[in-house]
Amino acid sequence: MLDKKSNPVVKIVDLELTVPSLNDNRSHETRLRTALNEEFGKVLIPLYALKKLVHLPEWSYRLKVVLLYSNNVWEVVDCFPVDQDINIYGIAIDLGSTSVVFYLIDLLTSKVLETVSKPNPQIVHGEDILDRILFAGRGDGLEILQKEIVELFNKTFNSLLTKYNSSIEDLFYISVAGNTTMCHFLFALDPSHLCKEPYIPVVNTFDLVYAKELGINTHPLGRLYCFSNVGSYFGGDLLAGILASKMHLKEEISMLIDVGTNAEVVLGNNEWLVACAGAAGPALEGGILACGMRAQPGAIERVSIDPHTLKVSYKTIGNALPKGLCGSGIIDLLSALFLAGLVEPTGKLVPSRDPARMIQINGDWAYVVAHETETAHGKPVYIDQGDIKNLVRSKGAMYTILNVVIQSVGIEFKDIDHYYVAGAFGSYIDPEKAINIGMLPDVPKDRFVGLGNAAGEGAVQVLLDYSNIQRIESIKDSITYLEMNVRGDFMNQLTGALFLPHTDMSRFPSIAKKLKELKRDL
Amino acid sequence: MLDKKSNPVVKIVDLELTVPSLNDNRSHETRLRTALNEEFGKVLIPLYALKKLVHLPEWSYRLKVVLLYSNNVWEVVDCFPVDQDINIYGIAIDLGSTSVVFYLIDLLTSKVLETVSKPNPQIVHGEDILDRILFAGRGDGLEILQKEIVELFNKTFNSLLTKYNSSIEDLFYISVAGNTTMCHFLFALDPSHLCKEPYIPVVNTFDLVYAKELGINTHPLGRLYCFSNVGSYFGGDLLAGILASKMHLKEEISMLIDVGTNAEVVLGNNEWLVACAGAAGPALEGGILACGMRAQPGAIERVSIDPHTLKVSYKTIGNALPKGLCGSGIIDLLSALFLAGLVEPTGKLVPSRDPARMIQINGDWAYVVAHETETAHGKPVYIDQGDIKNLVRSKGAMYTILNVVIQSVGIEFKDIDHYYVAGAFGSYIDPEKAINIGMLPDVPKDRFVGLGNAAGEGAVQVLLDYSNIQRIESIKDSITYLEMNVRGDFMNQLTGALFLPHTDMSRFPSIAKKLKELKRDL
Repeated sequence: MLDKKSNPVVKIVDLELTVPSLNDNRSHETRLRTALNEEFGKVLIPLYALKKLVHLPEWSYRLKVVLLYSNNVWEVVDCFPVDQDINIYGIAIDLGSTSVVFYLIDLLTSKVLETVSKPNPQIVHGEDILDRILFAGRGDGLEILQKEIVELFNKTFNSLLTKYNSSIEDLFYISVAGNTTMCHFLFALDPSHLCKEPYIPVVNTFDLVYAKELGINTHPLGRLYCFSNVGSYFGGDLLAGILASKMHLKEEISMLIDVGTNAEVVLGNNEWLVACAGAAGPALEGGILACGMRAQPGAIERVSIDPHTLKVSYKTIGNALPKGLCGSGIIDLLSALFLAGLVEPTGKLVPSRDPARMIQINGDWAYVVAHETETAHGKPVYIDQGDIKNLVRSKGAMYTILNVVIQSVGIEFKDIDHYYVAGAFGSYIDPEKAINIGMLPDVPKDRFVGLGNAAGEGAVQVLLDYSNIQRIESIKDSITYLEMNVRGDFMNQLTGALFLPHTDMSRFPSIAKKLKELKRDL
Repeated sequence: MLDKKSNPVVKIVDLELTVPSLNDNRSHETRLRTALNEEFGKVLIPLYALKKLVHLPEWSYRLKVVLLYSNNVWEVVDCFPVDQDINIYGIAIDLGSTSVVFYLIDLLTSKVLETVSKPNPQIVHGEDILDRILFAGRGDGLEILQKEIVELFNKTFNSLLTKYNSSIEDLFYISVAGNTTMCHFLFALDPSHLCKEPYIPVVNTFDLVYAKELGINTHPLGRLYCFSNVGSYFGGDLLAGILASKMHLKEEISMLIDVGTNAEVVLGNNEWLVACAGAAGPALEGGILACGMRAQPGAIERVSIDPHTLKVSYKTIGNALPKGLCGSGIIDLLSALFLAGLVEPTGKLVPSRDPARMIQINGDWAYVVAHETETAHGKPVYIDQGDIKNLVRSKGAMYTILNVVIQSVGIEFKDIDHYYVAGAFGSYIDPEKAINIGMLPDVPKDRFVGLGNAAGEGAVQVLLDYSNIQRIESIKDSITYLEMNVRGDFMNQLTGALFLPHTDMSRFPSIAKKLKELKRDL
């Protein structure tokens, strides 16, 4: 029934047990264990499933057995008559601080049936995760945060299963990849030490729990697996990303870059892994920019400016009238402004280069991408000098983190075969534009691979192959984590990266060439 | 702190963890696992204990950890500040159909603090276990039986712990040895197939359960271990008896005999074990005899009759006025009646031998042990012809079962080094008297060893040494079980054993000698 290569965390087997006789009066339980022994080894049979075994005589000793992989042993979690139709589902979750993405998996076919994304309801306590950590510390804040996420889970599970005419009893396994703080919220574990020196999580490796222990509705013996983390700033979402990238299986050297407020980076191959995380600032995600917005309809996601005519083209999500700029649009824009000479290498706007699009807001210069006549809200969409300063700082931090990581192992960017770009808007970044501003290293574009939702993909992988649980621990244990906060070289290196693309142009030969072609000498 | 030889199922360790720093920002959980790894291997940390770890900073990283052995791994079940006084208790239970015996164990010192015996409350549904099985099949009978025993557990636990100024939270582990039916009642598992061909239990090997799953109050993560059984008629109580007898560890051949309504017999040594169980009838326990009673104050437990003067001497429990006869008294009495010529080898009373003590009741002869003037209730205590017939059948069945077992392995009774006699009144039987009536084989008296409450002792052993759990499975798996119901030789052999002591006197040379000395030719 099951593909030989398929190793889902929950399986069904059909069994026809030998019928008892005076010469074979083994118990139902022994009969079942013996029948399962060859394929599953010594199984556990908890009380709930044991009680089902009393029906064996009426089922003529023919049954369907549901087995769940738990702490290195298979556990019999339910039994049914052999002719009953049984569904077994798993749900993988990318537990983000902004969005929570659910994947409904049919564990019999290993197919992803549905993917839905929901806003994280905790956002009412602050978009910034630090605000939520502060909220958790007040009164029953932590319990509220937990309850909000658990309610979202339960509601979404219900609607997903209802769509497939199934009940919550058919849901056996949940796998959750999230950053360290989000996972602490889910387990209602005090997060207060995550954000103060020396940045200690309560847990790195979560043991499997019964979903019901967290108030999450599943089959009575349904389990929840939560990805391990490497530290406060290196969460299970990134471990899930490594799993999804398969970089830990390859001989070639890869780099995984998770772009966000925190830049998280992993470098390595099947023999070693070095990781680092550091604050890149929220600018890249657009959140704090004057006209920044999330990747929703109306967000400008692509921008180009003709370096000669200075004509602006843009594309919005859903082709709606523009409302603001999202992450990928911001990177495009800064790249275009720089190559068109509208921004100096220092990050300073050059108002004289295109006076028609340059306006002053509160005494600061700003560049208008979409005039008020073009927008949904009748106000211009622009980027101002403060935004650019923040952006340059963020991209500089990102580049410096990458650089610190490669230096720590004594290699160069060109030695890295593939760069996997993950994160909320990782897949949407145009690597060429990110190179132009000196955020990503100057290597051939085809080395960049957008990973999509790597955390979600990793969470799915756990459901489809239980051996990934062990693999995640191996990955975690093989990671050498560079604590950026204790590395003096970060600040030294950052200085050079606070230019577009960098003070050391030998690091960005392709940009030097472009600038030369544009006859823009540095 | 702990004796090196001590391997209790629950342990406490005091730990002083390294204090976190920027160079060591492992989580609380990793810090704890690492500290425990050398002694306990890879431990599990369930949610309940994980939540306690958030206190590590306020405890200055010094803590007491309670570890419980569960399914071959150690599990952290609780944590406390290092200076808090913690008690950890276990309770071992001999779950008999008549009495339930509780042993409170201090798992820190491995000492048995208290032993209490309580009547099994299920007795209101029938003294005979078959009546209770029938009751279980009606309506919610099974749930009632379970509830009754669980309530007895909870009440007794409470009073035991209160006596030691402790709370139920200090109780971490329960171990239960009972016959197969009693254990099925405890787990509310349908017992209906236990008593009909082919006699199939639902369970042979119970996995460890959370006590709370059965409604039993303990520490939130407290576990209940229930002894495995070999079959419907060979319960965990007998496996516990084997464990207590240590016969499975010895080179010499031993026989374990559990005397009761069902005679249960194990023969073997450290290399092999053969077992058999069969109905001996309830007569030996006194239950169904006209003047039979349980071993309570007023029960005649010892009787002798001078074979020449026919003078009767007896001893009652508590030296109270006699009320009836208990098991050991009955065996003594039958032996004395036989040697004094008051009962023929066929089991027939000889009224003419002592007319003063012979009375007729409903047309049947009876022998008066205590006249109405001597008794507590003003009625005579006697044994009648029907009683004797039942007794002879019971003792004959017992002897035949022993004989079938030794024949199955081709040895003789004299080849057996020790006979361990267990069961409700096993320790009280005078082996000499039991040999006189042909119930036990005619071997030197010093080969008989009363085991006391072997089931309870075995249950205690599990708490004191977790490796016994694996050992019990090894014992169970090494047993060759002879199904008496499918052996034709039983009925053939029984015929000869329905005489006092046996038709074949060469089997009982010491009795032949005694009879000769008494000038009583057969």
